[in-house]
Amino acid sequence: MTKPVLVVGSVALDDIETLSSSRNDVVGGSAVYFSFAGSFFSNIRIVGVAGYDFPAETIEQMKTHNIDTEGLQLEKGKTFKWGGKYHEDMNGRDTLYTHLNVFENFSPQIPKNFKKTPYLFLGNIQPGLQLDVLKQIETPDFIALDTMNLWINEQKEELLEVIKQIDLLTINQTELADLTGIDNLMKGISYLHQELDLEYIIIKMGEYGAYLSYSSDPQTPEHALFFSPTFPVPFTVDPTGAGDCFAGGFMGYLAKTEELSFKNMKKALVYGNIMGSFGVQDFSVDKLLAINNKEIENRYTTLRQMVKI
Amino acid sequence: MTKPVLVVGSVALDDIETLSSSRNDVVGGSAVYFSFAGSFFSNIRIVGVAGYDFPAETIEQMKTHNIDTEGLQLEKGKTFKWGGKYHEDMNGRDTLYTHLNVFENFSPQIPKNFKKTPYLFLGNIQPGLQLDVLKQIETPDFIALDTMNLWINEQKEELLEVIKQIDLLTINQTELADLTGIDNLMKGISYLHQELDLEYIIIKMGEYGAYLSYSSDPQTPEHALFFSPTFPVPFTVDPTGAGDCFAGGFMGYLAKTEELSFKNMKKALVYGNIMGSFGVQDFSVDKLLAINNKEIENRYTTLRQMVKI
Repeated sequence: MTKPVLVVGSVALDDIETLSSSRNDVVGGSAVYFSFAGSFFSNIRIVGVAGYDFPAETIEQMKTHNIDTEGLQLEKGKTFKWGGKYHEDMNGRDTLYTHLNVFENFSPQIPKNFKKTPYLFLGNIQPGLQLDVLKQIETPDFIALDTMNLWINEQKEELLEVIKQIDLLTINQTELADLTGIDNLMKGISYLHQELDLEYIIIKMGEYGAYLSYSSDPQTPEHALFFSPTFPVPFTVDPTGAGDCFAGGFMGYLAKTEELSFKNMKKALVYGNIMGSFGVQDFSVDKLLAINNKEIENRYTTLRQMVKI
Repeated sequence: MTKPVLVVGSVALDDIETLSSSRNDVVGGSAVYFSFAGSFFSNIRIVGVAGYDFPAETIEQMKTHNIDTEGLQLEKGKTFKWGGKYHEDMNGRDTLYTHLNVFENFSPQIPKNFKKTPYLFLGNIQPGLQLDVLKQIETPDFIALDTMNLWINEQKEELLEVIKQIDLLTINQTELADLTGIDNLMKGISYLHQELDLEYIIIKMGEYGAYLSYSSDPQTPEHALFFSPTFPVPFTVDPTGAGDCFAGGFMGYLAKTEELSFKNMKKALVYGNIMGSFGVQDFSVDKLLAINNKEIENRYTTLRQMVKI
């Protein structure tokens, strides 16, 4: 009964510095984190571009994890490279450099076999490319989208064009303020429901958790709200990709259970938080490669217990 | 069946600047915020010192709210004054000035009628004064304590002396790191349970909510965790005193229900978050003077719903 999920996003080799350690050329990118996290729940179809330096080992690991790599374009040149340094508290970070490399001319090509994928996640790439994907795919049952300040500020028109066609937007607090011009969380959420006609909104609160807001009728200011904290881990090694692990867990669970209700999305949000909590416990997708379903279920039970009044 | 709560803390006249407005000489102080918030649940006994400039109107309002002011010392001179300016996002703030005034020589005097109070909240004042209070009072059923970086860094020995005698510590994330020398939330909590023999710990996460941790046996690393988000409000006017409103709601509910179990403390924590959410909706205790029990219960129901999976 599990349905597949298609993700389009970045594929990267990251150089990462934290206070306690640093690593170069670790496999990353939104589509990669998403795929490994989502693969615990459903079959993931990855669409992205990597250079010839991308490790074949990772592609093998994807196949082992039931991730369909037919849409992963391998091109002559170097993989997209991001260099980042985290602040002491692991929340803030500075981008040291960004080398687009083969990502510069990326044009998503959806393989024929992928065109009917019922669950679609448009990872954080240029809104124009997200639109290209929508043109190539037959209307999915559910479309979620992630974005960032860069596109909100520089390509707002295209972004609003994509948002018109989606069911769920994931966004963080500062992006919400940039997109709506409203500083207050609740007012910003109402604005998105009413002005952009969005049915579902996820506000990612980083290490604190996430809100899910649902509006059955965007014409009214009424919307139902759910909050889940993150699963607290004893040590954060590297926060890179936590939001993408979150999205992978969320979409994977939805596709696995095939129930697009607010009630089921609450559960999906909790699974999202749990996959994010695993993601930060090691560099790259290393922790995701080391866990099993039982560990995921254990955290789900614990987190459920943790919020039960 | 409601039991009284004694609070010792500051009584102040604050000058407050936020991005959208500013107000001078507004009634504040930890004991004042605590008392009004707690008064919705139980009889509060306030111990503190104010100058002759403190408004008689507030003392009348306290009496109307069933707050016993016998321990509120009124002294010749000016009330403790704090001037603060909030950052744009309302989370950070700068202290512009602090004039101790009559607070400088404050020596808490517990009235005879208060000596048997079963619930005690030691607000954020010098640890030496908190110890003085403990010496004057017959062993209460439950003692909670709040503190701040200043005392952690400058009077750690006295603070640890007080902590030995309490049941619950409220602390925020940076204070936790300062007190334990540990940057990670979960590890810091374990340390407090085991090294300081604390049964209950509340980690105040500001606008995000609060954790409650319970260790039935501090000799083991096991501890039960509960998290409640804050109640999201459509507009934050002034965050001053939110933590004290939180504490007042928490302690007031405990004293009202007289059940010192982890289960009941979870509910108390939710009521704490709710009282904090009212506190920030206006300057001073103005919003607390304008609400009723029904509004509190409505938020409780909504918040409960908001976290239900």
